[in-house]
Amino acid sequence: MHDKLTGIAASAGVAIAKAFLHEEPDLTIERKEISNIEAEVNRFEAALTQAKQELSEIKDKTEKDLGPDKAEIFAAHILVLSDPELIDSVKEKIQNDNQNAEFAMQEVSTMFVTMFENMDNEYMKERAADIRDVSKRVLGILLGVKVQSLATISEETIIIAEDLTPSDTAQLNPEFIKGFATNIGGRTSHSAIMSRSLEIPAVVGAKTVTTKISTGTTVIVDGLDGNIIVDPTEEEIQFYTDKRKRYQEQKEQWAKLVNDSTVTKDGVHVELAANIGTPKDVEGVLNNGGEAVGLYRTEFLYMDRTELPTEEEQFTAYKEVVERMEGKPVVIRTLDIGGDKELSYLDLPKEMNPFLGFRAIRLCLEEKEIFKTQLRALLRASAFGNLKIMFPMIATLEELRAAKSMLNEEKDKLVADGVDVSDQIEVGMMVEIPSTAVAADLFAKEVDFFSIGTNDLIQYTMAADRMNERVSYLYQPYHPAILRLVKMVIDAAHKEGKWAGMCGEMAGDEIAIPLLLGLGLDEFSMSATSILPARSQLLTLSKEELSAFSNEMLTLDTADEVEKKVRAYLDM
Amino acid sequence: MHDKLTGIAASAGVAIAKAFLHEEPDLTIERKEISNIEAEVNRFEAALTQAKQELSEIKDKTEKDLGPDKAEIFAAHILVLSDPELIDSVKEKIQNDNQNAEFAMQEVSTMFVTMFENMDNEYMKERAADIRDVSKRVLGILLGVKVQSLATISEETIIIAEDLTPSDTAQLNPEFIKGFATNIGGRTSHSAIMSRSLEIPAVVGAKTVTTKISTGTTVIVDGLDGNIIVDPTEEEIQFYTDKRKRYQEQKEQWAKLVNDSTVTKDGVHVELAANIGTPKDVEGVLNNGGEAVGLYRTEFLYMDRTELPTEEEQFTAYKEVVERMEGKPVVIRTLDIGGDKELSYLDLPKEMNPFLGFRAIRLCLEEKEIFKTQLRALLRASAFGNLKIMFPMIATLEELRAAKSMLNEEKDKLVADGVDVSDQIEVGMMVEIPSTAVAADLFAKEVDFFSIGTNDLIQYTMAADRMNERVSYLYQPYHPAILRLVKMVIDAAHKEGKWAGMCGEMAGDEIAIPLLLGLGLDEFSMSATSILPARSQLLTLSKEELSAFSNEMLTLDTADEVEKKVRAYLDM
Repeated sequence: MHDKLTGIAASAGVAIAKAFLHEEPDLTIERKEISNIEAEVNRFEAALTQAKQELSEIKDKTEKDLGPDKAEIFAAHILVLSDPELIDSVKEKIQNDNQNAEFAMQEVSTMFVTMFENMDNEYMKERAADIRDVSKRVLGILLGVKVQSLATISEETIIIAEDLTPSDTAQLNPEFIKGFATNIGGRTSHSAIMSRSLEIPAVVGAKTVTTKISTGTTVIVDGLDGNIIVDPTEEEIQFYTDKRKRYQEQKEQWAKLVNDSTVTKDGVHVELAANIGTPKDVEGVLNNGGEAVGLYRTEFLYMDRTELPTEEEQFTAYKEVVERMEGKPVVIRTLDIGGDKELSYLDLPKEMNPFLGFRAIRLCLEEKEIFKTQLRALLRASAFGNLKIMFPMIATLEELRAAKSMLNEEKDKLVADGVDVSDQIEVGMMVEIPSTAVAADLFAKEVDFFSIGTNDLIQYTMAADRMNERVSYLYQPYHPAILRLVKMVIDAAHKEGKWAGMCGEMAGDEIAIPLLLGLGLDEFSMSATSILPARSQLLTLSKEELSAFSNEMLTLDTADEVEKKVRAYLDM
Repeated sequence: MHDKLTGIAASAGVAIAKAFLHEEPDLTIERKEISNIEAEVNRFEAALTQAKQELSEIKDKTEKDLGPDKAEIFAAHILVLSDPELIDSVKEKIQNDNQNAEFAMQEVSTMFVTMFENMDNEYMKERAADIRDVSKRVLGILLGVKVQSLATISEETIIIAEDLTPSDTAQLNPEFIKGFATNIGGRTSHSAIMSRSLEIPAVVGAKTVTTKISTGTTVIVDGLDGNIIVDPTEEEIQFYTDKRKRYQEQKEQWAKLVNDSTVTKDGVHVELAANIGTPKDVEGVLNNGGEAVGLYRTEFLYMDRTELPTEEEQFTAYKEVVERMEGKPVVIRTLDIGGDKELSYLDLPKEMNPFLGFRAIRLCLEEKEIFKTQLRALLRASAFGNLKIMFPMIATLEELRAAKSMLNEEKDKLVADGVDVSDQIEVGMMVEIPSTAVAADLFAKEVDFFSIGTNDLIQYTMAADRMNERVSYLYQPYHPAILRLVKMVIDAAHKEGKWAGMCGEMAGDEIAIPLLLGLGLDEFSMSATSILPARSQLLTLSKEELSAFSNEMLTLDTADEVEKKVRAYLDM
């Protein structure tokens, strides 16, 4: 039945193919009172063994078909199934509370998933997805329900699903999987991130795709504008075939820009940088023409381990990144963690509002040894490239001063010990808490640069948890209040002769880019894959012209009005 | 042993008396596996019966000694012990998980306490304290541990405690209890609020009082400046006796101001209003010379019941308040609830960051029937006095417009039905989300007034949950960013010829009052008992002089510097 649906454009491109409806297995679970505890524990262990076996097979197949990188996630999943915290908790519930294995497994995994999802950190949210995913597999085995595999698809297909889990996306072979569309998710959900990384056109959050589309129906997924056409007409197929072709041509044009500098139509250079999580990501930055690393999230170093990373381990990672960037700037953010028991080896109390809690610099200023170790590693790595240090979650000048003073103390000690430390390290801060945007003039006197963290800044300024679906409509990057805060930060930086960057999702957004350029942003840091399209867009924009335009946008009433005006300006 | 301790001045006044160390009973609980489930359930029920019996006796004694108002809390406690949600959960844990009654009771009460404490609402936090308190009594009975009673104290005493529970404070007879000091708590904790309401000098959050002070030691509690003197010298006793005398004289001076208008030294009138929760509170407003109700929190009407309040019930409550205020302004805030399953009859999802969640206007705009019922009740009550309507948690103009449009729709319907509705109702909004402060000029065009909710505004602007002890140092009302936002709001209102008030804790704070006056605040809404001291202070201040001073404060670096300058200005 011919139908048009809309959702969030998650990954650019156009796909036309037959649909495959990836259905969720029915994993309804009842609590049962178990009498033979030993048998139940054995049943649970057998399910674990089988799940590991299956995962190991998928891992091998993925490695063969898609390469070792894509197979890594399954190694992680196998590890989850060996995690004593998880496994023992399930067994305890079977043994102490006489719960059936399914129920116990579900209770425990829900608890872990909730805990991890709750963290403001892409990595930890993926961990939550991993656990959900693995636990679904185990539950399927326990319940005798078949859990579908996408790995066996061998013709051109568009996947239609409620959502795609990490095991799902890891099984997507771009040779056959031409696109996907999901009911739920947003631009930063796992499936959206994976679709961009795999360069598969995708529309997420389209609400009703699984009810409106069945297996075998021809579907168009327009990941450029968030459209899904069900059972298209000839004209539509023609239209979207042309659109796909134009997009392919555009991509080829973009690829030519990889070694270019980013200069606007009126000759202004801005810096296009990338956000990374591990030294491994540097390759993608360079392949996509990144001029800098605008945000290196150091949290990964602290995750998935049983004790803190040593100074040496950290030094090695930081050194690798600055060296591979060959003198290009690398902004390294100090540890942004906390808010819940994220690290098993740190005993942090559970908090009611972790986004408003004890995390990042707040934690580091109290857990001084952890912070000092990181500062020393950063200082030592500074001798090997263009390293800049950035503090997260600063709210007051006292915090900034305390962090800087600890940094200087460690620097003096290292220098006294004859260790090589750069004397040109720029020290900056994230502007992600409204107080620092409103008082940016005060902070600008005491930092070398700002990087605006819009993901957090928006959620605090709007008092809306961006992970909470019920209030996600309030996550409004174009709200005049947000634009005004961004302007305050940029103006304050410039008044003191400092630079201002942005490392939130907003920096790579084609509606936001003209506004940010107009407001004077110096550095845009984004996913590596967004760099070339951004460069291409910036080449067409005039900063001078946009300056007047952007300031006018600050006086509009709503985010919607701003977006409409920008679209009109861009002729979109 | 002579010693000086400091804490948070929670309730003004000076007390000198012998200490009574109120110790926490040892309620260490072990989990035991129960074999005879029926016997355990019976044991639990017997403990409930005994606890109710004890509470009933305390209630009768309190009613006799201190009046029926003070006894009410025990009726509430007895109700808690009859709450099927709580009781059945405990029984289930005994029956299904073979848990011992103590362990089950503790698990369940901890869960409820955590849930209630998590709510941004004074009332719900008291409910948490109630449950903790009642559960302690039941646990004491189950464990055979004696839980001390303060009701039997019959000589002049200062209570020293870790913290005081509602049953503790309800038992405090001001005839004998001259003051108290606690290890934990802040200005808005239950014990602090009760101390002000009972007018007992108190210092809270003094950290080590229970280890430094033993029963029988002479102690001075200086609730004016947050000092505690242990085993004072003759000179100290003389000094504090004089201080107490001066404070008494000051209070007598304040009392004379009860019928006065609030006029600054340079002849400017500002309005001193009170925050209330129920019609009953109007008496305190009038006794303390309140010129208006600046914030009527309507949540109480929705609490402690099994279904929504009807339009009629709400109408009766609103009418009573506006009538008893006899034409003085009454600002009624529409329902500010949500963020967790606060109302058993509303099925709200559990949220990870309830302070950034689905609450207040966000909920009301979706649950339209609930909102309409309240709007109709408000409109009908408007015919009986000077009623103003205020929307909480507005973040965008779209929300404000949607709320106003629902209000106008209901008004039109009522008028069409011939119901009397005032045509002079002012409609305003809380400014408690940073976006609305930053864009106050846009909102000012579409409201009749603003009321700045500093409790929330500060926590969002600083990204720090004010209920979280680990980040409570970031709750900084004098932070230059907060003062700047306040100024933006006031200036925006005045530019459109509207008025700006404040209904957060900050409005009654003697350091903040000069700043707020200088920034041009028109209305200060606070606890009723703060009104007379505030009036007295305002009589001595010059708005013109403070205008320059306050604007200078906006340029200082930190909250600390601001506070020091204000103290110097006030000669404190």
